[in-house]
Amino acid sequence: MATRVEAGSRERMLEAAISLMRRTGLSGAGINEVVRESRAPKGSMYHYFPGGKQQLAAEAIDVYAARVRDFLDATLSAARTPAGKVHALFEALARRIEDAQFEASCAAGAVSLDLDAQLESLRRNVDAAFSGWVDTIAAQFRPRNARAANSFASLVLTTIEGAYIRSRIARSTEPFREAGRWLSGIAQTTFGN
Amino acid sequence: MATRVEAGSRERMLEAAISLMRRTGLSGAGINEVVRESRAPKGSMYHYFPGGKQQLAAEAIDVYAARVRDFLDATLSAARTPAGKVHALFEALARRIEDAQFEASCAAGAVSLDLDAQLESLRRNVDAAFSGWVDTIAAQFRPRNARAANSFASLVLTTIEGAYIRSRIARSTEPFREAGRWLSGIAQTTFGN
Repeated sequence: MATRVEAGSRERMLEAAISLMRRTGLSGAGINEVVRESRAPKGSMYHYFPGGKQQLAAEAIDVYAARVRDFLDATLSAARTPAGKVHALFEALARRIEDAQFEASCAAGAVSLDLDAQLESLRRNVDAAFSGWVDTIAAQFRPRNARAANSFASLVLTTIEGAYIRSRIARSTEPFREAGRWLSGIAQTTFGN
Repeated sequence: MATRVEAGSRERMLEAAISLMRRTGLSGAGINEVVRESRAPKGSMYHYFPGGKQQLAAEAIDVYAARVRDFLDATLSAARTPAGKVHALFEALARRIEDAQFEASCAAGAVSLDLDAQLESLRRNVDAAFSGWVDTIAAQFRPRNARAANSFASLVLTTIEGAYIRSRIARSTEPFREAGRWLSGIAQTTFGN
């Protein structure tokens, strides 16, 4: 029993860290906030994450990265044409930020703008998350035009990260929908119908 | 004399707040950090900014917004063709983030991902900054295609904000240069040569 309860605490702390990072980046995901949000015993924090906040944040980014990768793959695969894939992705993201009332965005993006030189190891986790996502997006377009797929996928990710910033400030889904329209156009031109 | 010294303190505090926000967003621009970075007497903080951190941040965003607007106008105006304007802008931004050793980005973008519901008034300052920048970018393209200019300018800003996130994590200018290539292509297609 004790093991199951503890395993639950560890998972809840990671989920709390992800949720807090999506809202206000690394600065909002301090030990006290994670303990409060997860309702885990404070002692279990250093039991599971002896490296403290940085270790927790790094593991949370890894969990989040895998989850987003699955989301990207499922959303893009459900549409058939290149333009349709891009449209479906930006529509899905628009609905997600609206559901979050424009108060939560990408955990990796939010952490990125909080990094300083002391957080070099966390930067590497975010870098791996971004690389994995670019690869997942690119896989959808490689069969049509291998040369352009990676660069286009990277543009898609850049635009998504920017759209989160714009959407949170405008409190509107329009930055996602607008970017989706332009990038669908590029997808059609570059990868065909 | 006293007045001149005090006026200098106020300006130095605003500059320190901008510099700190560019590095780590709102979370890094606390009263203590701004006082330390600006070397202003702590008492002058509440003298000039009785509303504390939020007032200082809001005024710093307004100063920063005007400065970026001038930079956008000068950089875009210096090139002649639509594609050339986009290329020049992303090149200039690539050089800026490289000069900052990938540790400083857009103050408004960095603050955006730190906002919560309690910071509604600051959100409005950032919203005004973004709107002003979109308008400044759009003005360059309206004579060619008035209908598309605003939406394209908004895409350019979205992409810039995302490129800052990607560049800081990759410690590379490539996200700016890559986005600049794609968006130059759109500019040529949409606005002609």
